[in-house]
Order: sequence, then C-alpha cells, then structure tokens
Amino acid sequence: MPGSSFGEFLTVSTFGESHGAAVGVVVDGVPPGIPLSVEDVQRDLDRRRPGQSGVTSARREPDRAELLSGLFEGRTTGTPIAIVIRNEEHRSSDYERFRDALRPGHADWSYQAKYGIRDWRGGGRSSGRETAARVAAGAVARAILAGRGITVTGYALEIAGIRAERVELAAIERNPVRSPDPEAARLMERAIEEAKEQGDSVGGVVEVIAEGVPAGLGDPVFDKLEALLAHAALSVGAVRGFEIGDGFSAARVRGSAYNDELAMDGGRVRSRTNHAGGVIGGISTGERLVVRCAIRPPASISRPQRTVTASGGSVEIAVEGRHDPCIVPRAVPVLEAMVALVLADRLLAQAAITPLPPHPGGG
Amino acid sequence: MPGSSFGEFLTVSTFGESHGAAVGVVVDGVPPGIPLSVEDVQRDLDRRRPGQSGVTSARREPDRAELLSGLFEGRTTGTPIAIVIRNEEHRSSDYERFRDALRPGHADWSYQAKYGIRDWRGGGRSSGRETAARVAAGAVARAILAGRGITVTGYALEIAGIRAERVELAAIERNPVRSPDPEAARLMERAIEEAKEQGDSVGGVVEVIAEGVPAGLGDPVFDKLEALLAHAALSVGAVRGFEIGDGFSAARVRGSAYNDELAMDGGRVRSRTNHAGGVIGGISTGERLVVRCAIRPPASISRPQRTVTASGGSVEIAVEGRHDPCIVPRAVPVLEAMVALVLADRLLAQAAITPLPPHPGGG
Amino acid sequence: MPGSSFGEFLTVSTFGESHGAAVGVVVDGVPPGIPLSVEDVQRDLDRRRPGQSGVTSARREPDRAELLSGLFEGRTTGTPIAIVIRNEEHRSSDYERFRDALRPGHADWSYQAKYGIRDWRGGGRSSGRETAARVAAGAVARAILAGRGITVTGYALEIAGIRAERVELAAIERNPVRSPDPEAARLMERAIEEAKEQGDSVGGVVEVIAEGVPAGLGDPVFDKLEALLAHAALSVGAVRGFEIGDGFSAARVRGSAYNDELAMDGGRVRSRTNHAGGVIGGISTGERLVVRCAIRPPASISRPQRTVTASGGSVEIAVEGRHDPCIVPRAVPVLEAMVALVLADRLLAQAAITPLPPHPGGG
Amino acid sequence: MPGSSFGEFLTVSTFGESHGAAVGVVVDGVPPGIPLSVEDVQRDLDRRRPGQSGVTSARREPDRAELLSGLFEGRTTGTPIAIVIRNEEHRSSDYERFRDALRPGHADWSYQAKYGIRDWRGGGRSSGRETAARVAAGAVARAILAGRGITVTGYALEIAGIRAERVELAAIERNPVRSPDPEAARLMERAIEEAKEQGDSVGGVVEVIAEGVPAGLGDPVFDKLEALLAHAALSVGAVRGFEIGDGFSAARVRGSAYNDELAMDGGRVRSRTNHAGGVIGGISTGERLVVRCAIRPPASISRPQRTVTASGGSVEIAVEGRHDPCIVPRAVPVLEAMVALVLADRLLAQAAITPLPPHPGGG
Repeated sequence: MPGSSFGEFLTVSTFGESHGAAVGVVVDGVPPGIPLSVEDVQRDLDRRRPGQSGVTSARREPDRAELLSGLFEGRTTGTPIAIVIRNEEHRSSDYERFRDALRPGHADWSYQAKYGIRDWRGGGRSSGRETAARVAAGAVARAILAGRGITVTGYALEIAGIRAERVELAAIERNPVRSPDPEAARLMERAIEEAKEQGDSVGGVVEVIAEGVPAGLGDPVFDKLEALLAHAALSVGAVRGFEIGDGFSAARVRGSAYNDELAMDGGRVRSRTNHAGGVIGGISTGERLVVRCAIRPPASISRPQRTVTASGGSVEIAVEGRHDPCIVPRAVPVLEAMVALVLADRLLAQAAITPLPPHPGGG
Repeated sequence: MPGSSFGEFLTVSTFGESHGAAVGVVVDGVPPGIPLSVEDVQRDLDRRRPGQSGVTSARREPDRAELLSGLFEGRTTGTPIAIVIRNEEHRSSDYERFRDALRPGHADWSYQAKYGIRDWRGGGRSSGRETAARVAAGAVARAILAGRGITVTGYALEIAGIRAERVELAAIERNPVRSPDPEAARLMERAIEEAKEQGDSVGGVVEVIAEGVPAGLGDPVFDKLEALLAHAALSVGAVRGFEIGDGFSAARVRGSAYNDELAMDGGRVRSRTNHAGGVIGGISTGERLVVRCAIRPPASISRPQRTVTASGGSVEIAVEGRHDPCIVPRAVPVLEAMVALVLADRLLAQAAITPLPPHPGGG
Repeated sequence: MPGSSFGEFLTVSTFGESHGAAVGVVVDGVPPGIPLSVEDVQRDLDRRRPGQSGVTSARREPDRAELLSGLFEGRTTGTPIAIVIRNEEHRSSDYERFRDALRPGHADWSYQAKYGIRDWRGGGRSSGRETAARVAAGAVARAILAGRGITVTGYALEIAGIRAERVELAAIERNPVRSPDPEAARLMERAIEEAKEQGDSVGGVVEVIAEGVPAGLGDPVFDKLEALLAHAALSVGAVRGFEIGDGFSAARVRGSAYNDELAMDGGRVRSRTNHAGGVIGGISTGERLVVRCAIRPPASISRPQRTVTASGGSVEIAVEGRHDPCIVPRAVPVLEAMVALVLADRLLAQAAITPLPPHPGGG
Repeated sequence: MPGSSFGEFLTVSTFGESHGAAVGVVVDGVPPGIPLSVEDVQRDLDRRRPGQSGVTSARREPDRAELLSGLFEGRTTGTPIAIVIRNEEHRSSDYERFRDALRPGHADWSYQAKYGIRDWRGGGRSSGRETAARVAAGAVARAILAGRGITVTGYALEIAGIRAERVELAAIERNPVRSPDPEAARLMERAIEEAKEQGDSVGGVVEVIAEGVPAGLGDPVFDKLEALLAHAALSVGAVRGFEIGDGFSAARVRGSAYNDELAMDGGRVRSRTNHAGGVIGGISTGERLVVRCAIRPPASISRPQRTVTASGGSVEIAVEGRHDPCIVPRAVPVLEAMVALVLADRLLAQAAITPLPPHPGGG
C-alpha cells in the first residue's frame, strides 16, 4: 500500500533501483492453473529493454527474468509469483557529476524534498528501469487475460508531432519506433535522430487498445475502469496526459454527436459508434477499449541547462550518458503492461460478484 | 475497497442512489483538532446543487448536509465523519419510460451487464447525484488543507469550444458558468442555452489549480501524485481526459523547451517555468499544481436517439426531464473536491514518513 | 482503511459515537440479487440492544435501523448499503462527573494519549454502542451466507467461572444470558445479579460456531481464516483472548492426539475428529468452525476505584449509571456478526479464484 | 492485498515455497534514514533457521539473506527493501511418498480444496519456511522501533505442559528451547527429546513482551492494537490461541480485581497493575505489552496415522523426514517479528495523526 503496489485483486509490488542489485516484482492474486513460462515474461521484457535499436539508450542490460516462486509444472499455483531482474551494467560513474546538481526535468529536487535522502546514482525509484518490473508483471496479467480471449496492443500514434495516418497492427513490431503506420514510422525515426544529434529529445502519444473485453468490468464510482486506467497510465514516469475514447475532443462536440447509439448485433447489445472508447459510467461496454497517453520528451539532454545544487549554488549542466532521445517506443510495452494489469485486476474483481465461466486453461 | 472508497490515509466511502432515501459519505482518517462546521460543508454543496441558474438542471434539491459523527465542540475528534444528504425531489416517474430502454451515452447497458440487476429509477450509483457526497467530503479535505495554507480552485477553462482568454479568480463565482474570463463567460452561457433550445448538450474543460502545496507530496512509483489526481478526475462520470501541466502539448515539444530549469528564490529551490504543473516524478515540486479535465456533453438530450431495450428490441427515445445541458459549471466544485481529497490524503501520507510541523489549528 | 473499516471484499465502515447523533455503517461489496429486508437487520439489532433483561444495561435505546441505500425491490443491487441507527437516550449528564477523571479499565487515558482531544461524553468510538453498527452489518453478511447454507451461532459458554455443561442450541435464546445449558444459565444469571448488587461486574467466554462452511475459504499466509477471525474477535472491546478449535489445550497434548485423521464419508473428505476447529493452515476444512473468545468483566463498576485526572490529580471514583454488570449476553450477537463478516468476506474472496456455483437467491 | 501482504503503513509481502528457488519478502513503507545492515537481518534469521540444536529439524538451510534494494550507504532510502533467501537443501524426494496422501494435521486437504492444484513437494505457502521471510522483515521493523527505544522479546513460557516459573531475559538465548527459566528449560528439552524418541511431537506457549511502547498506538475500532496482534499471531501456522494481558483468566475475575487503577508516576500516567497487558480500548497505554500464543504440536510425526489420498483411497502413513518435534523454540523469533511488524506499522500510522518527534537516527 505504501506506493509501490498496484491492483487490488491482482496486486503487483515492485522493488529496486536502477543502480542497486536488482529490480523485481511480486505478483499476488494470480488464480491457480494458468499456463505461464519464463519465456512469456522474457518476450515482453525484450521489447522494453534498452539497446534494441538506434533510437533507444545504449545501456546494455540483458534484462533476464528469474521466476522465484508461484509456478509448478508450467502452471501458476495461486501463490505469489516473484520475478527478479538483475542490474548488470549500472555505471554509477555516469552520475558522479550529478551528485549535487539537481537535474532539470528530473525528480531530483522533489525526491530530495520528500525523503531528505537521495541515492544520487541514477533516478532511484523514479528511474525508468523500475518499469522493467511492471512489464514482467504485465506478462503475468496477459496470461490471465489470454484465457478469456482478451488481447492488449499498444503503438506509437504520434512522435515529435508526426502522427500515424493509419493503424496496421502487423506493422508495429517491424519498425524501431513501434508505429502502426510504416511511412510515418520512417519520419518519426528521422525526427528522433535529428533531435538526438542536436542534444535534444522528443515526445509523443501512445495509443493502447484492448480487444475482447467483456461488458461489465469496472465499478460505477471511484474505481471506474477509466479511472484505474488513468491511474495506471499516469503512474508511468513520462506520461502527462490521458484520454479514453474521444478524450479531449469529446469536450468540443454536442451530445447528439457524442452519444453512441445502441443496436442489436448477433444477439448482443453493441454500439454503432465507439466515442466512449469501450467504457461508459466506469464499466466496460464490450466494445474495443481505446486509451491514449501523452509522453513528454525525456529530461536527460546533452544541451546545457541552468539549475541549482542541493546546497543552493547555481550551475549549468549537460546530461551526457546513455539516454533515450525518445522514450515512446519503449513506453509501448510498459503501457500495454499497465492496461493488462488493470484489466486482469477487474476481471478477477468481477468474478467475486458474478461467477465467470471456468477458466478453460484451469485444471 | 470494493469500489465506493477513495484514499488511503484520508478515506472517503460514499453511498446512495439518486432515487433512494439519501446519498452520503463517511470520511475516515481526519486528524483530530481540525476546525470544521456544517456550514463549511454546506457552502460547497450549494455550489454543486441543481437549480442554481438557467444553465443547470431544474431539479430542486436543497442538498442539506447533516453531520452525524466525528465532531465535538467545533473540531474534528479523529473519528469518522458521516454526512447524510437526503434526496427530496426524486421523481421516479421521470424514468418510468426508460424502465426498459437502454439510454445512449448512459451506463444503463454496462451497468446491467455488470450487476444483472438495475434500479431503473435514475442512474443508480452512476448518477451525478453521487458527487454531492464527494463535494461534502471535499469540504472536510479543504479544512485539513486550510491548516497548511493550501487552497484549491477550479473553473471552466472552456465550454462548447469557447476558451477563457484570461484567468481572473475573482470572476469565477460571479458568472453562472464559473468561467475565470467574464467575457468568455457570456459566450459560454449563450452556447449552452443555444444547445438546450436545440434539445442538445455541450461539454468543456475544467482546470483546477492548487496553491501552497509543499514540495514532497506523492510517491515515486504507482502512487505518483499525478496518477492519483488522474484517478480522482476520471472517477467523475463525465470526465474523458486528464492533463497535468502542459499535458498533451508536452508530447509535441522538445526536452530543451519542456524541462523546467531550477533557480534559487528567497532560499527556496524554485523552477523558472512550470511546464510540469507542479509535479515531477510523481512528487510535488512546491510550484502551483495545474490539472485539466475534459468533460463530455451530458448524455441526456431531448433529441431523438435510436437504441435498444433490455430485452433486445429497437426503439427511439428522447430523454426529457430536468437535465443539465452542460455539466461543466457544476463539475467545478466536484473536481475541486477530488483534487482536495488527493492532496489531503498525500499530506497525511507524507506525515507518516517525515513529521510535518504541528497543525496550527490543532489543540 | 484508517481503522474504521473491516474486510476486503465485503467491506464494512462504521461511524458514530455513543453520544452523538447516530451510529451507522456502510457495507460495500455486497453481491447483487441477495434477498434482504430491514427486518433482517432489526432482528439482530434487537438481540444486541440494551434493556432486554435484568442482566443488561437499563439504557433504553430502540436501536431502530434505517436502510438508506443499496436495496431495490427487496434485493441488494450490488451498491453500498448504508444503515443508520439514531442515538436516542444519550444522557451526557451521566458523564459530566468523568469530564476530567480517567476511568480505570476504560480507554479514557489511551484515547487521550492518542488523539489529544476526547469527547468525554461516553466512550467515543470505544463505546460498546459502536457494535450496534457491526451487528447491522453482520445481518447483511448473514444474508449472503444464507444463500450458501452457512449459519453462524454464538452462546455464553462460561460466565463468572460457571461453564455450560452441554450445548442445546434451542436453549440459547430462551434464557437472558444466552447459555446453551438451561441449568448453567440459572447459575450464571444469579452470579451476574450477585456481582451487580455488590457494585461489581463479571466476565465469561463466548463460543461461536459456523455450520456449512465449505472447504477452501481463507488464505495460507497472512490472511489465514483463523487470523481474520482472531482480528475480528479482538476488535470487539471486551475480548482479551481467542481460541480456534482446541486452542490453548492444543499446546498441552502430543501431535498424535491432536492431529485430525482423515476419512472418506459419503464421497467427501472428512476428519474423524475436529481438534482443528474447522481450519488447517489458514484454510477451512469443511468441518464445523469453532472459536472461543474471552470476555473481561465490564470496566464500569460502582465500587470506588483510585485513579487520576487528565491534569494529573489523584481522585477516587465510582462509575454509577446504566451499565451492564456482564457484557457476555449482548456480546453474543456482536461476535456472531464478526464471524459472519469474516466468512462472507472470504466467500467472496474465494469466488475471485475459483467460481462458486451461482447464488440460488440471485436473479 | 490478496493474502500475502501484511501491514498498512509498513507493508510486507512475502513470496516463495519451501521447495521452490527461494523465499523472500518486500518491505515497503520504511521511512528514510534508518540505519540498517544485512547483518541485522541475518542475526534474526539465524535464530529461526533449522539445525540450530538437537531439538530442531536437521534440515541444513544456511538461510542467507540477500538485500536487493532500498539501502544506500548503510541507511534506508524510503523505498522498498527486497530480501531474498535461497532454498538450498530442499529434498523433494522426502515428499515423493506424500504426492497423493493428504497428511493429517497438515493443510494438504484444505489447500487442495482451495486451489485445485497443489505443489506436493512440501507445504507450499503453508510451509514453516515462509516464516523466514517474516523474520527478515521483522528485523527491518526492529530497526524502526530501535530508533524509538522500543524492544520486543519472546520466549517459551511453556512446553509440553512444563511452565517457566520465572522470567530471566538473559537466560533465553542460553538454552536451546528459549525458556526464560533455566531449570524449566532442562525439563522442556527432555520432554521434547522423549516425544521425538516416541515418534511424536509437543506444543507449548510463547510469550512476547514489548518495552518502551508509547501510549497512543492502535485504533479504537477494527484496528485495535490487540486485534492486529491477534491477526499477526494467528497468521503463524502453528498458533491456535492468543491472549493479551490476563487473557482467558480475565474472563474469570471480577471487574474490581481486573481494572488497572491509575496513578501519576514521575509526571506520567501509569497503571498500578497491568492486567490489560499494555492495551486498553485498542490503544496502547504506555505499559509493557504482553501477549501469549498457544502453539500446537507439529503435524509431522513418524507414528503411523490413518488418512486418505487425493483420489479417495484409505492409507496409513508415517511422516519420516527432518521435522521439528517441537516448533516452539523456532517460533519465538517468528512471533517476535510479527509483534515488531505490528508495532512499527502502528508507530507510522500514529505519525500520520500526530507528528512524532524527529527520528534520532534520521539524516
């Protein structure tokens, strides 16, 4: 509960700093009998790890997952699954210079104000490295969702102001920026490289969709599905905005244009349009879930910036080191993981209200 | 925990439906010794209640708060504060027509899918009426914040596409739409009336700011301050998007333009700009907190819409009744309340880590 | 979470002081479709209220329950059920004398140390009156359990050192002390009256059993069923000890005598004995659940006792007023309620893991 | 929340099975700046590990703690502390025989009923081995308490019906049964050996005391200090009963004998006696905290017992292997850890209400 846990029915608790021995996660509440392997976890981790391409950090972390508990003969046992990912290439020396300087855009100052003590070797818990633990947990959530036919997919909808004009899901993993539009992908990649050359960084927008979500997930008041998704999204360091369905555009149209009319389709209640993005009144409608997250440009840039030291002096710094000029491509699996965690959590929550059909993968 | 509670240190649990006997809230975790009166609660409730002006619902609810516990001689005692607000003018007959029809844009269908049972007399827990309980709880949170010099203020930044060009806090409560720009206010009001005449509805954007927030509130991982604020915001029925600081605009600028440089100011670390909106890495910076929420147009419109009945038939309906053509003005105190609840919760959370100075209002 | 809530899946939050306007409770997490009426709640409240017989307090509280939400057409809707019980006969004047004196055996001193402020008119939240709210919530839990064929029954196993020699469930409600042994009942009643005449008070032991509990409820680690039951029991003011099954006797026998051997019985795994009291390793076995709670003698006695005032002076006091000379008979429904709340909570928890068969009472 | 976590402000989440790769724990909510080393953790682990003496299991686990996060330069950083303890000598072959047989007294049957899947190699999460993780977490709690001058000490008050006649704290760690009475210790040791020779096992009673607990910890309703302690105690596998202060004896005396009279002592409110065991009305009084736990005899005995197999057959089994004939000596550090965790949790909880003085060990 004290800040490092997420989820009520499927609870993940992450631990670890970027410059300590390891990062990791304990996933509790996983139903027994779900097929799961270390490879399932590794596959997602590989999509997040640094050094994948020219547009990501050159830090070379193998990000090898070790599963310490909760599995027996290829299935979950209903007990907590602990996953540890050792930190291998942490060069504290990269940070020696910032021992005193409070880096602009980083949490150095707010962190210092909160704790009165700060491990200056990297971002501590604010480091993007903590998200490796989330991606590992997300793979467990995906395994739960898979048994219900629910899939979660994310992609770079926009980078450096360049927007994908079309969404081809098959294209996403074929380009280094994870754009669903191969042509936009090339422009996005170029924009990132240009910023990098100029010692600068760029942001973008990640869209995550989920297919197969049954109607009835989420709660009508504080734990609205969109509220949990917003919480999940904004808990990822670089995210500064969140939309569900039409989002901010919904504020600019009339009710007659926004309301999704209902119709029967194959015996099911369906909506003719999906301005709501799959959730109305906090509860899923059975339509495709659609959320978008605004990602700010990374704070670490090699252009000089003015700032202060912890002791109050003025200083100009340039954050050299192995940093991502754009975090959007690596944020995609992280945000997918967060969406998967919310959906799996609410799937289990709903089971406590109305029994779900038996899990097809269960013993 | 099962969906009707919010906050960990300051926990609010709301109850009640729009067409039952009452709505209400229990606020637990309030520190002892805080000055609080029923008038403090009533003042905020009066800003939310229907029938305030021509642009709100004509339902005439006095929304009279009764405080049942937790106070003694004008101060909080540290025990739960229960507040009950009786429903007086609930006309179930208004809803008789919708006993079967699933209203477009409303949670009728998703609610039915979730619970298998539905009180068709209004929106049940999805009703905006539930937010009266939140506003009452928010008044308690404000009393806690007041002792620390923290204030929370919201306003209509945008309605029906019309944006406030300037922010005059003194202007907000002087116009029925709660715009901080008196001229924009007139245009907004006209736009709402126009939509209403056409049997339609409009949305907008609410901005909420908090002054006096100390640096150090919030947590670096899942309970980032912005994550809790996003959760709080999206838990309000009509909200479809959330931004902190520059929000989605941050996705379109470079790091060198986005990062807030730091400087000393009167012995304090301050940032020269506030693109971050007062939170970096999940923890408050001591700068002004700035969030924005996108509000969709109300679902209840008198223009005919096509939909289905619970039993699968097709039907065309027009939602007559006493509905708001724009919820933005009444959403202002609700979103203020949610922001106040998050800040008070994190203020208490921080006290468990590093002692805060004694509460000036305390015994 | 801040101390006034109990349960994770079925969460009860109580509020109210003995000398305020009301006590009450919000029960959240109740599945939809459960038959429930105000009479169900009132029946249990009537068993707890003061003034039932010569061995209870003469305070005359009607303890009339008002249900404010969560019901529709005689069934639960899945939304929070709020229940309010007005305080009618609270004579603060009874307490005027103790405005300063810290009563021995009461929480006056520890309460003062905790909050720094104390409503001296009665015991505040420590008052036994708060348990009326729990009994009301327990009636809701019973309704959930009833649908699964689970019943919870408590009785006075021992009062003032006099032990029931046999357990006749039908006898319990036929004597004022709620003893399952009619002969012991007479001796117990006499012992209470004798203590009362001498300005003193007596304690006893309540045993609570539950029949029909399916195997599989509870968790293997921190939320062992017996741990939750012990938490529930010790959260009742006068309880100073807890046992499950053989309890402290188990510490004095050998493993060969304690272990319950297993055997098949009608196709089910059953244990030949039930030293474990229905729970092994934190999880129910399907056998009868048996717990016992030690109840101390009430602190309020009219014999003079030495104590101090809040300002540090010495004083001798006699606590006159309408107090129970023995709380055991009225503690029976309270402890039944607590056991019912734990069982209902774990029943719902288990549903999130393995689907329970559909609720027979459900729509 | 799903059963493997404990504590609200100081939250521990354990993971791992006796026959998997490791057991471990994540401790979240630790305030920053507390001095802590791996040796502090190892010291307590060494008191719990098997193979310490002739009266414990011969399983040779070094129980070496590895701290993966949350420390920097010898102090806590305020971030989660993850501790992993590898399982080294787990002989699954010892359990091959019990692949099908449901061992009497063990959780085999209830576990199977709960999960429908069971890792038959040992007790899974019900294994005593899980408590190593708790002891590690307890060492962290002790470090927090140390800064406030609070100490927690446990001992074997009774084994096999033999009771310690006096309490010499210095004697506890000098005898293999952890008795505070050196003479009783010899008799206890002999009784254990005798039971072991006869293929049987014995139980006992552990008493845990805490000195230096300030008045004001705990809450007046559901989270009474004694309720949390009872929850903590009964969450330890072999515990079947719990008492605070006079416990069950309190049920047999009159109020005039039970009530602790108050007196001033050196400017502080003190009680002349301590029948209450340091807690009244759920809140600590500032007196010595005293709790007792009944420990049943271990279930694993080599005497033949009748039972059934998972498939319903009858079978007679003798549980050979390296088992403890009496768990009491090793339960002492486990119960100390649980008491320390509760006290540290409530110490932090109280800080959120009324600021504690700055931590002397803090930066």
